[in-house]
Amino acid sequence: MYSEKVMDHFSNPRNVGEIENADAVGQVGNAKCGDIMKMYLKIEGDTIVDVKFKTFGCGSAIATSSMATEMIKGKTIKEALNLTNRAVAEALDGLPPVKMHCSVLAEQAVKAAIYNYAKEK
Amino acid sequence: MYSEKVMDHFSNPRNVGEIENADAVGQVGNAKCGDIMKMYLKIEGDTIVDVKFKTFGCGSAIATSSMATEMIKGKTIKEALNLTNRAVAEALDGLPPVKMHCSVLAEQAVKAAIYNYAKEK
Ligand code: FES
Repeated sequence: MYSEKVMDHFSNPRNVGEIENADAVGQVGNAKCGDIMKMYLKIEGDTIVDVKFKTFGCGSAIATSSMATEMIKGKTIKEALNLTNRAVAEALDGLPPVKMHCSVLAEQAVKAAIYNYAKEK
Repeated sequence: MYSEKVMDHFSNPRNVGEIENADAVGQVGNAKCGDIMKMYLKIEGDTIVDVKFKTFGCGSAIATSSMATEMIKGKTIKEALNLTNRAVAEALDGLPPVKMHCSVLAEQAVKAAIYNYAKEK
């Protein structure tokens, strides 16, 4: 049911945790299952130099967040805003259709963090 | 949002894994979120002497399954059939209402395993 990449990012998730004194924090909830995702960004100039996430969500939420954090680390804010849940799912060699709703958490949490960051500036 | 007991059973889940040559195996899916739970029972006479579970579900699914396996280990099949998701949630000092659907997986997987076991006999 799950690709090798999903299993890998589920079993060994990258960038799990919090960033103390993060420059941006975003938290979103999933309407479908009730799960929550929190994303922490460290931003220098225009670049996301570090990113961590925490969730109580399912394996698909963990795998997509792990992959999403890898994809935006070192990227500019603008590039990160272009990240879509489809691109993350593709990078994981796909997700079962019934679990696509989980991949939305990572995208939305990144966007919420950047939105909060922009609001404060 | 989550009780200490939920956090404990999520961080240190009991009875995770598979049982080789299990006497009963039950697998169920959650209609609400698409998550899957697999439950393995070792049965001697009328007693559940060992139980393990595997899931790709969320933290609440992991915590409730961990607690449910603790509650049925050493019990008779009949006692295990009386396990309800409410009793498991109560033993965990409650779950947020939005996550109650996750607790159904453990109850249903236990029942599915026992059902399959009875069918084979
Ligand atoms: S959200 Fe699927 S089991 Fe909890």
